[in-house]
Amino acid sequence: MKVTFQIQGGSPVQIECNAGDNLLELARRANVAIDAPCSGNGSCGKCRVQLIEGELETIKSRHISDEEYAAGWRLSCNCKVLSDCIVLVPDIASAYQSRMKTADLSSPKEIAIFEDAKAELLHSGIEFTNHFRAVAVTMAEPTLDDTMPDNERLTWAIQSELGVEKVTIPYCVMVKLAHTLREHNWSVCVKGLLEGDTFRCMEICGPEDTAIVGCAIDIGTTTVTMVLTDLVSGKLLAKGSSGNGQIRYGADVINRIIEQSRSGGKKKLQDAILKDTLTPIIANLCKTANISAKSILRLSVGANTTMNHLALGVDADPVRMEPYIPSFFGWEGLLAGDLKLPANPLAPVVIAPNIGSYVGGDITAGTLAAGLWDKDEMSLFIDLGTNGELVFGNRDFLMSCACSAGPAFEGGDISCGMRATDGAVEAVTIDNATMEPTLSIIGDEGQKCVGICGSGIIDLISELYRCRIINAKGLFIREGSRVRRDAHDMGRYVLAFENESETGREVSINEVDIDNFIRAKGAIFSAIDTLLSSVDMTVDMIDKVYVAGGIGSGINMKNAVNIGMFPDVELEKFQYIGNSSLTGAYAMVMSDQAIEKCAEVAANMTYLELSTYPGYMDSFVAACFIPHTDARLFPSSVQE
Amino acid sequence: MKVTFQIQGGSPVQIECNAGDNLLELARRANVAIDAPCSGNGSCGKCRVQLIEGELETIKSRHISDEEYAAGWRLSCNCKVLSDCIVLVPDIASAYQSRMKTADLSSPKEIAIFEDAKAELLHSGIEFTNHFRAVAVTMAEPTLDDTMPDNERLTWAIQSELGVEKVTIPYCVMVKLAHTLREHNWSVCVKGLLEGDTFRCMEICGPEDTAIVGCAIDIGTTTVTMVLTDLVSGKLLAKGSSGNGQIRYGADVINRIIEQSRSGGKKKLQDAILKDTLTPIIANLCKTANISAKSILRLSVGANTTMNHLALGVDADPVRMEPYIPSFFGWEGLLAGDLKLPANPLAPVVIAPNIGSYVGGDITAGTLAAGLWDKDEMSLFIDLGTNGELVFGNRDFLMSCACSAGPAFEGGDISCGMRATDGAVEAVTIDNATMEPTLSIIGDEGQKCVGICGSGIIDLISELYRCRIINAKGLFIREGSRVRRDAHDMGRYVLAFENESETGREVSINEVDIDNFIRAKGAIFSAIDTLLSSVDMTVDMIDKVYVAGGIGSGINMKNAVNIGMFPDVELEKFQYIGNSSLTGAYAMVMSDQAIEKCAEVAANMTYLELSTYPGYMDSFVAACFIPHTDARLFPSSVQE
Repeated sequence: MKVTFQIQGGSPVQIECNAGDNLLELARRANVAIDAPCSGNGSCGKCRVQLIEGELETIKSRHISDEEYAAGWRLSCNCKVLSDCIVLVPDIASAYQSRMKTADLSSPKEIAIFEDAKAELLHSGIEFTNHFRAVAVTMAEPTLDDTMPDNERLTWAIQSELGVEKVTIPYCVMVKLAHTLREHNWSVCVKGLLEGDTFRCMEICGPEDTAIVGCAIDIGTTTVTMVLTDLVSGKLLAKGSSGNGQIRYGADVINRIIEQSRSGGKKKLQDAILKDTLTPIIANLCKTANISAKSILRLSVGANTTMNHLALGVDADPVRMEPYIPSFFGWEGLLAGDLKLPANPLAPVVIAPNIGSYVGGDITAGTLAAGLWDKDEMSLFIDLGTNGELVFGNRDFLMSCACSAGPAFEGGDISCGMRATDGAVEAVTIDNATMEPTLSIIGDEGQKCVGICGSGIIDLISELYRCRIINAKGLFIREGSRVRRDAHDMGRYVLAFENESETGREVSINEVDIDNFIRAKGAIFSAIDTLLSSVDMTVDMIDKVYVAGGIGSGINMKNAVNIGMFPDVELEKFQYIGNSSLTGAYAMVMSDQAIEKCAEVAANMTYLELSTYPGYMDSFVAACFIPHTDARLFPSSVQE
Repeated sequence: MKVTFQIQGGSPVQIECNAGDNLLELARRANVAIDAPCSGNGSCGKCRVQLIEGELETIKSRHISDEEYAAGWRLSCNCKVLSDCIVLVPDIASAYQSRMKTADLSSPKEIAIFEDAKAELLHSGIEFTNHFRAVAVTMAEPTLDDTMPDNERLTWAIQSELGVEKVTIPYCVMVKLAHTLREHNWSVCVKGLLEGDTFRCMEICGPEDTAIVGCAIDIGTTTVTMVLTDLVSGKLLAKGSSGNGQIRYGADVINRIIEQSRSGGKKKLQDAILKDTLTPIIANLCKTANISAKSILRLSVGANTTMNHLALGVDADPVRMEPYIPSFFGWEGLLAGDLKLPANPLAPVVIAPNIGSYVGGDITAGTLAAGLWDKDEMSLFIDLGTNGELVFGNRDFLMSCACSAGPAFEGGDISCGMRATDGAVEAVTIDNATMEPTLSIIGDEGQKCVGICGSGIIDLISELYRCRIINAKGLFIREGSRVRRDAHDMGRYVLAFENESETGREVSINEVDIDNFIRAKGAIFSAIDTLLSSVDMTVDMIDKVYVAGGIGSGINMKNAVNIGMFPDVELEKFQYIGNSSLTGAYAMVMSDQAIEKCAEVAANMTYLELSTYPGYMDSFVAACFIPHTDARLFPSSVQE
């Protein structure tokens, strides 16, 4: 039998199947993106689809109302196909793939942050230089009296030009050498790596094609961001981003590790990131920059430990199994050809090193970019991605840890939560008198509300608390037209009534959502708290707080402090540093010194395993209030 | 429309085609081997097929008699398909693919020759050692207190075991590291290369799999021969050979170069040798030797210049175009993965260096094996393959040249000529009184005569001359039942009458055949003569004559001298050294020193271009008699 997925705003996709096949599984096999943060166990309620035609066996979920059920809405994760079906996949679910809002250097503000970080690295003594070269050479044509074969002729020309002793010519150059030399009348450009007294050729082309390019990649669990840069000038040639194609195998790393450990899983997860995600972006950026993929002579990757394992096809089971030791921290000698990426096959792929199962290369690259390693002042680095990671220290020491904040900041675990795509509420203020909200919604003018994303939730909870609509435990304590209660007396605050929303469904936040969120923010604050006490320090000793990650960009720091998520330090100490993993990757692709420095940073960073750290649980429990059980920690937190 | 090739002794092959398509082209596309030494220009008459059903447009060839034509026999090269056809492809034509007689170390005599050569190389100071190693290591399992990741753990274990400073782990090992370590309970075997203070891992496997293997390959224009050897003991593990799959694109190198220069030709020719020929043999030998292909850690290749270019996918046009300078002589850094051969992808592929367009790696490898470079005595090395190549010299100098002897020694240019496969006459004596021949035929007891191969032709012409059946110009001068004349008074000698032959066709040699052969042997002798005079030496200064190549094995040296093909030196100076290209390749795969020595031999070898050498043409013309215009050069040549 056949299932047809009608994707809102996209082309339909058809797949053959057997009776009883799971609908979400089929969507994955057909490469149809359905949002499924809980990876198909029925708990998140995000994988909704509408049955248009045919028969599905399903268990009715609490996430689907009776009216919705009657209209054909189902959770794809608990549907079995019983006949040929046509199924509508809401655009809302797949929107993140093309329109995920992320720190991808697309705004002038992001560019400015990026340029600042670059300037600061330069100031710290990191030179943005490397040993890749494009060399123009002209040779004499062979004659009966000058019988040097092509490869020796080229070698000799490069030796003369660069004054090197040895020249290596790899297979990919050798096979086109004869043709290229003759096509361009013995005047060519050779691209490669100058290593001591050796020039390692990587590409040969016509004399006019002198571009040598680096590709810096940030692989997030949710989003992938990338820039191409000129390896000589450091100029950005093209930039782009998209959702991580692995998302269809689960929103969090654990679900994906489970998925990869199934038969054929490693290849499936690797293909999802390499073939389905990175390859099209790189190809696109090459087109934009008008360069050949073979001109990409180095790539660098900032990614968390699991993403590194999955992208490289390495069994990620050790990451999630006791004793939680990944298969690798650093990795030398990786080539683009190993991964079949559209780049020069001999281009080294520099992986920012992991330092533990849950503090990965995105954090070491981010720490490199934030410059903690070069400062006397005490800095706290917070990366809020799908997970939360922290680094604290200065030039003398660096401590790091990860906290399982859960997916709340990305809209998971929150009934109307969503990622930061079109229709998401990204900022909220509430009028204390009328309790009416003012919403800032991502998207074009007139975009109606679909749900709420991480930064919106922080604002919303802070505002609800400030207006005393909820108490320190997150329970509703004020009545009003926007505060509703269900049959079980559970309170909720309505951001958008059914007639105000894009989907016709109410957008609200209830006490369970708020409780979930408080646990998430509590996890972060208690991690900060524990990290500080592990080195006998306190909040007031923090000189600087760097907030990184796409999720960080829209955060209202004052509100984050107000609810006890971030430590209560002067607001001017907070600095949003954008996608620091990408910035770090950029530094590494451009600069040999940055690669060395990142390895040094990783080697000197101590990893604190919170789950087994004494006192962490107590600290967490204490932080699960607004702002905290110990209100003295948050003197600036206000209620009106 | 469709053409079905019914291959005698094989499975039928079908191919779709358009009206007017050339039948030989279709056979090539369908991978049906049809013997076509002249590459389809209608001159050799070897590409016979029998039309069983359907319609072909053809030009009747002089190679097809009226009776044969009526029976459906056609030359496939000049047939156009007009309808669905069924065509019979004689086994005789495709026989060479599986049953080509070649020096492939399959006989005790060949093994003895091989062992002698090996012993002599050892005696010359070439140690049969290399730096490939299989290392058994056992590691402690990671624990919460021992948090080293897999790659560092393995690195550390290898460092401890070998005392090396650096260990590199390539992608192909990294991706299976986590699984292999756990599957084998942290006790594994690592195979790789010990390079100074660095161990380069190439493969990881269970502790019991300790095989490290080399693969030595001789790629001839006609035949490919190969051995697997234990890289530690040097023991031969398996050996095999087959026809060169490129044969369907022409019997000689020139036709193949023309073919590769057409659109898509490079890939076609490369696939024919790598995918269709080498890959199945290697896979087969691995099965025989019971080893994994990943255990093959080094390969070596002895091949002529054109074969090297075609196998590596490098444009071979420069080989045949003025100024006849190949695209490469030596090639460093080639890996099995570049060629997608079934071996460890990181295994270096050592190419014995070419020294000119027509003196290639098979000759430098052969010279290495013959040991000319280590001797005081003056040696002449003759390799009779599809082409003829010569080397002359000793430890002080080495001169080389190639002569275009044409395909006569492989049965080309001779009406009843064939390669040395079943049914070929390989030796002949003639009774002077009765003029009756005694034939030695390749094949099982009772095998009837199909045609005559190179060694048979040498014997036959020598015997015809000895018995004064032909004169010095190769014209018939005696009458008898086996000497026939056609309508144009052209004489021929019948080896097998129609009722005596396998095919029912007469097997004979005529004056045109003899003339062609005299030109071939004349080319060889005049090349020897010219090579000697280029260094002011004469035949009597030759201390030793090494005769190499599959074609050389069956040669009766006395007869070869008798007809003026080989110089008239004492017969005991002749030594048959078998497939010296394979022996040289074996030495290189086993021994790092042999690789260096072969490069040195190539660098010191002078290439003499005969076609432009003054005096060569005169010498050639003088040699086109039996034995020579100057009979004093061949005092042992006899006529009874």
